[in-house]
Amino acid sequence: MSMFLPRTGIGIDIHAFAPDDAPAPLWLAGLLWEGERGLSGHSDGDAVAHAAADALFSAAGVGDLGTHFGTDRPEYAGASGVRLLTEAARIVRDAGFEIGNIAVQFIGNRPKFSPRRAEAEAVLTEAAGAPVSVSATTSDGLGFPGRNEGITAMATALVVQRTQPESTHPESTRRDTLEP
Amino acid sequence: MSMFLPRTGIGIDIHAFAPDDAPAPLWLAGLLWEGERGLSGHSDGDAVAHAAADALFSAAGVGDLGTHFGTDRPEYAGASGVRLLTEAARIVRDAGFEIGNIAVQFIGNRPKFSPRRAEAEAVLTEAAGAPVSVSATTSDGLGFPGRNEGITAMATALVVQRTQPESTHPESTRRDTLEP
Amino acid sequence: MSMFLPRTGIGIDIHAFAPDDAPAPLWLAGLLWEGERGLSGHSDGDAVAHAAADALFSAAGVGDLGTHFGTDRPEYAGASGVRLLTEAARIVRDAGFEIGNIAVQFIGNRPKFSPRRAEAEAVLTEAAGAPVSVSATTSDGLGFPGRNEGITAMATALVVQRTQPESTHPESTRRDTLEP
Repeated sequence: MSMFLPRTGIGIDIHAFAPDDAPAPLWLAGLLWEGERGLSGHSDGDAVAHAAADALFSAAGVGDLGTHFGTDRPEYAGASGVRLLTEAARIVRDAGFEIGNIAVQFIGNRPKFSPRRAEAEAVLTEAAGAPVSVSATTSDGLGFPGRNEGITAMATALVVQRTQPESTHPESTRRDTLEP
Repeated sequence: MSMFLPRTGIGIDIHAFAPDDAPAPLWLAGLLWEGERGLSGHSDGDAVAHAAADALFSAAGVGDLGTHFGTDRPEYAGASGVRLLTEAARIVRDAGFEIGNIAVQFIGNRPKFSPRRAEAEAVLTEAAGAPVSVSATTSDGLGFPGRNEGITAMATALVVQRTQPESTHPESTRRDTLEP
Repeated sequence: MSMFLPRTGIGIDIHAFAPDDAPAPLWLAGLLWEGERGLSGHSDGDAVAHAAADALFSAAGVGDLGTHFGTDRPEYAGASGVRLLTEAARIVRDAGFEIGNIAVQFIGNRPKFSPRRAEAEAVLTEAAGAPVSVSATTSDGLGFPGRNEGITAMATALVVQRTQPESTHPESTRRDTLEP
């Protein structure tokens, strides 16, 4: 039975807002937020996309953002959150899992999210190739999100191992069958 | 297969304790806690019930607390957490999902939760129409929960899409069949 | 259908680093980290193992760490995180659940986790008798993890109720059958 039991994962990502003397554009949940203070980071600082990617890795048990896209991987310096989520989904599928869904919530005073929720969910769902929902809340003025120092995003994901490993997929089998 | 794969969701809610000059009763996890300092909020400040509702919305991908019960919905001003969770469960079922379970943990020094856990779980389970578990921890004196400034609740929920959409439920089908 | 629907759970554990005048070894994710500042706690302070155990309890709806291993249970004073996770898995199975998987992420500047991830996951997977994945992130310098005051671990777990209660397991049935 456990062969078909889905697996749950968790992902957390926290980014500080960029300092005043090094302003950056705000990328969050796969979208550019004009006129908003940006987040700092090795990549584009998109905490929502990063938490989503980390939840996928966590569910599949294949490491985390640092393993796959860390500072020792200069090719990912400045990479967009959407690109990292796309790559994470590919890695998890290559490891033998189907992706059920990803759900992310972020904690921050800004940006005001609900007017662009549908747009953000469409971009991230396209990147993951599976439903991604995004919600938002504040910390009621408490802690670092309440002091506008940064944003925390938390995600959970559900994946399920394919019943057949890659090596016995129909395509491979067919080729074997067709070969003389 | 993905038609029957459950979906996971996440919900976080943080409320500050009410200021000394505007004391409030404490509502948490669907219960009134006599003699405890209350939480502030647009509604009753029940972070546990709110996180549970947000996890349901997140799993079903139908927005969040702000979408459904925000400050632009004055009819929910002062609404109890139990009422919001009841409404959230109805909204999620109307969107075509069955609710598997909801699990919430809150972080705070007060109230001492374990003596009333069974009572709280019974009230919230009744509201959601599905099992709700509630657990508690402290932050070991750290951060805003450690300074008794507020309470953080985090929840996860599991829902599954019904195999038949509302419009093709047996009732509807039967009516079509019986019509000449 | 809900008879076979898995249940999700959440677990959070936060431990402060031990004060300079009462240094402790660091136990985290089931491993001893030589030369690292330790965490304080009733037990060994292993926030990762504790969050994993709490997520199991939460998914099964059988209380939390305090219920089972609290300060009123002196036999668990100083118990290792691995022992608590082993006990938690036994309690959850005794309550009628199979364990699907557990996923944990911790937030802290130290220790540098990735070189020992495989080792940690092996130890915790052995303890739980089910796959445990562990990932790590920082808070980008924010909040108490950013100030090196402590570590937060968050976990999610998936369990599923057995279709047959313990009392009607084949072994019991067979004994009944064989008895005259």
